[in-house]
Amino acid sequence: MFHSILVPIDGSEHAKKALAVACQLAQQEQASLILLHIPEQLAQDTLLVWGIGAVEMKASEEDLEAAGRQIRDRATEAARDAGVEHVEAMIAQGDPTRTILDEARRRNVDAIVMGSRGLGDLKGLVVGSVSHKVSHAADCTVITVR
Amino acid sequence: MFHSILVPIDGSEHAKKALAVACQLAQQEQASLILLHIPEQLAQDTLLVWGIGAVEMKASEEDLEAAGRQIRDRATEAARDAGVEHVEAMIAQGDPTRTILDEARRRNVDAIVMGSRGLGDLKGLVVGSVSHKVSHAADCTVITVR
Repeated sequence: MFHSILVPIDGSEHAKKALAVACQLAQQEQASLILLHIPEQLAQDTLLVWGIGAVEMKASEEDLEAAGRQIRDRATEAARDAGVEHVEAMIAQGDPTRTILDEARRRNVDAIVMGSRGLGDLKGLVVGSVSHKVSHAADCTVITVR
Repeated sequence: MFHSILVPIDGSEHAKKALAVACQLAQQEQASLILLHIPEQLAQDTLLVWGIGAVEMKASEEDLEAAGRQIRDRATEAARDAGVEHVEAMIAQGDPTRTILDEARRRNVDAIVMGSRGLGDLKGLVVGSVSHKVSHAADCTVITVR
């Protein structure tokens, strides 16, 4: 059903659950996973999963980059541990919604699997979460995991 | 990851896609699927998938019941065709959001997999879709398929 799946990942618990669902879907048909991390300046101190400590509100660019690489690497590891063979991971800069949509189109993925709320969404509750916007604008199937 | 999955089904294309995702998740770990249909009086003529014709706006209760049984049976067939062994299907009356949440709790399911919008949601756009409300109030993982 799905041959290539895009999984936007931040350090959030929602993203971790979404990755687990994506891995299960990918395994069955040997689909390839594309993990996408988009570093964001967060509005509050945030606890990241995957064994990474909190990134502070006023984190320097270097700190954010280092955390980003760690998130990418841990997520890749988690996908491989779950038995997915084809895993690719990338870091891209930009507005999260637009970057996810652009990447999904560019790579022509069959599905986007993402958490219902990411780390950056607390400040964005008024205008709606990234997943909400993505699921309305994407050309492909969007699976939102809560 | 998921041992029992609740799949609310109406005759919509979204529900059909959700069922396909649920089947793929279920197959891998031999999870059981519980298909739940909640007949609704629709606000407009509606084209149902699964080879069932449109149900008219002023459908009689008998017509709605017959359509409901057909939706249940076709969905069960689709799940079995997709290779899922443990499929159970039920029809329940009531408010869709509340009925889905109640059934999920009562059956202690691990996940609810549902379409992002069902047939009854066109009239309900202002107050939000059923899937939106379910994903905010459920105790378990909710996977919304668009």
